Amino acid sequence: MQRITIKDIARAAGVSPSAVSFALNNRPGVSKEKREKIMEVADELGWRPSFFARSLPSAKANTVGLVIARPARSVNAESFYFRFICGVEQVLVASSYNFMLKIVDSIEEEMETYRSWWLDRSVDGVLLVDIRDHDPRVEVLEKYELPYVIVGNAPESIRSNNRLELRTPDAGAMQMVLEHLAQTGVKQVAYLSGFARMSHTQQRIEAFNRNAQELGLEAQTLETDFTEEAGAQKTLDLIAQMGTPLGIVFDNEVLALGGLSAVKAQGLKIPQEVKLVSWEDSFVCRIVSPQLTAVSRDSGRLGQEAAALLLRRFGSHETASTDFEMPELVVRASSVGR
Amino acid sequence: MQRITIKDIARAAGVSPSAVSFALNNRPGVSKEKREKIMEVADELGWRPSFFARSLPSAKANTVGLVIARPARSVNAESFYFRFICGVEQVLVASSYNFMLKIVDSIEEEMETYRSWWLDRSVDGVLLVDIRDHDPRVEVLEKYELPYVIVGNAPESIRSNNRLELRTPDAGAMQMVLEHLAQTGVKQVAYLSGFARMSHTQQRIEAFNRNAQELGLEAQTLETDFTEEAGAQKTLDLIAQMGTPLGIVFDNEVLALGGLSAVKAQGLKIPQEVKLVSWEDSFVCRIVSPQLTAVSRDSGRLGQEAAALLLRRFGSHETASTDFEMPELVVRASSVGR
Repeated sequence: MQRITIKDIARAAGVSPSAVSFALNNRPGVSKEKREKIMEVADELGWRPSFFARSLPSAKANTVGLVIARPARSVNAESFYFRFICGVEQVLVASSYNFMLKIVDSIEEEMETYRSWWLDRSVDGVLLVDIRDHDPRVEVLEKYELPYVIVGNAPESIRSNNRLELRTPDAGAMQMVLEHLAQTGVKQVAYLSGFARMSHTQQRIEAFNRNAQELGLEAQTLETDFTEEAGAQKTLDLIAQMGTPLGIVFDNEVLALGGLSAVKAQGLKIPQEVKLVSWEDSFVCRIVSPQLTAVSRDSGRLGQEAAALLLRRFGSHETASTDFEMPELVVRASSVGR
Repeated sequence: MQRITIKDIARAAGVSPSAVSFALNNRPGVSKEKREKIMEVADELGWRPSFFARSLPSAKANTVGLVIARPARSVNAESFYFRFICGVEQVLVASSYNFMLKIVDSIEEEMETYRSWWLDRSVDGVLLVDIRDHDPRVEVLEKYELPYVIVGNAPESIRSNNRLELRTPDAGAMQMVLEHLAQTGVKQVAYLSGFARMSHTQQRIEAFNRNAQELGLEAQTLETDFTEEAGAQKTLDLIAQMGTPLGIVFDNEVLALGGLSAVKAQGLKIPQEVKLVSWEDSFVCRIVSPQLTAVSRDSGRLGQEAAALLLRRFGSHETASTDFEMPELVVRASSVGR
């Protein structure tokens, strides 16, 4: 294919070549609207930055990128992500790679970031987190030929042959939790999940319903926004609907703490009337009373393995996905009687 | 001054020009020892990367850097830093800047990172955290002419005219804490500090001792490594030495939680016999029983202001340091009787 030049784009977009240059180089000097228009036209024409120009001073950025698109109030995600980031860093530092981090509000901004990183050759590849059904980010990364590793289980809807996953055993862990609750003698279970648009949430909900059925447990699930308030309120809703004894699985420790306070304020007995299990362990689960039974996984190691997988892909075009270790269920007083 | 070439460095270091090239470009192909030797010689000769070569494809990296040199086990720092990072990101994203994050074990590695960022022109400037007495990082940043903002109060030993600080009111906050404790009627106070090599720790210790004296309180301080275990053990040591009633100020909420458990395990009454104040608030302080009185500051906003100050320096060579807002003292049951 003939190489597309700035002049071609300028002509097609009906703007000056210098406006195109500003836009393509991601520099100020052109309005947001004009820039978007230019980028669209450039895309349509199949424009790619000149490898030679972009390859100075070096073809390799020696940098790995991570964009977290997080809703403002998902507090817990913070502790998970910081431990994850520390793990990523351990591996990158040891391999002399830099780490580019971006925290944005939406996956639209996340995709815009990938474009800008690709234009500037800022990163050699990225870690993709919070994968969802029909995730448009995968298409964007493949279009820009940015190597990536999906942290978690890519849903069926992601059909690329090029995808590389660090798979997490969400279904197995949920089975472990429900078998534990069944062993405590409870007949009804509920799951306060996170955002249902996340694939791992869907996979957990599916496993929850399937395992509950297999174990002969009555089951209900409710979506939350990960806040303590939602944990408290939805726990009370569940108890009002289902009655006790009831076993509740919370998608993170912040939800579990909200639920714990609400249950205590109602004067209900833990674990006799309500059993609580937190999906995500932290020192917080040990300092509350009663202590919280929790699914404990090493998010630092998850970060390490994700970074290592991406570096292997850089070196050898690795395509074999990896399974992350099963988490441990740490049984404490919130689910078993004293 | 005559421009120093790779050949000059190769001659002086007694190595091949290609080895010098590998070393200066921070690429593999030369041993760590050889690389260090070469960098030393290059420094001595006053070598600087060619502006022209480094300025392609663009003179501006459009990136801000942050290196955190953290001891492996300082758990709390994590929550502080993640909220800080989220604040930094909010400002950078709005200004289309990238964010380069590095987490390393020592300030030696931190300085090595600055050199590598400077060589690669990876960042336009950095945020400098955990400033300490005679901090060698300031000298390194000035040598590389990397703009920086010090987050916190630079100690007297940092003499540069070029420094720019986002000052934090540590002394004022400590005065607020001690006045609160004095009002509760306690006559003895103790402070479990963080690492004494940090300037903010020294400033807090100094303010603690000065205010205790002015308020006529008997005072003692002990250094810790920020762990829950240290919080528990040193709290028991203090009680054994000083007796009760005693007011204890903990440098973060993890220390405070350790102290709280230890005091409860001893069967001592809170707040009648032991009053606890945490320097750093979090939802954890609200979920324990009794709830913890805490110094509450907005670490997200601290990150925002630090990033904004650095961006102002880029634009206008800003040199006026800024004072960060006073934190709030949130009084809860751990320091005032019910």
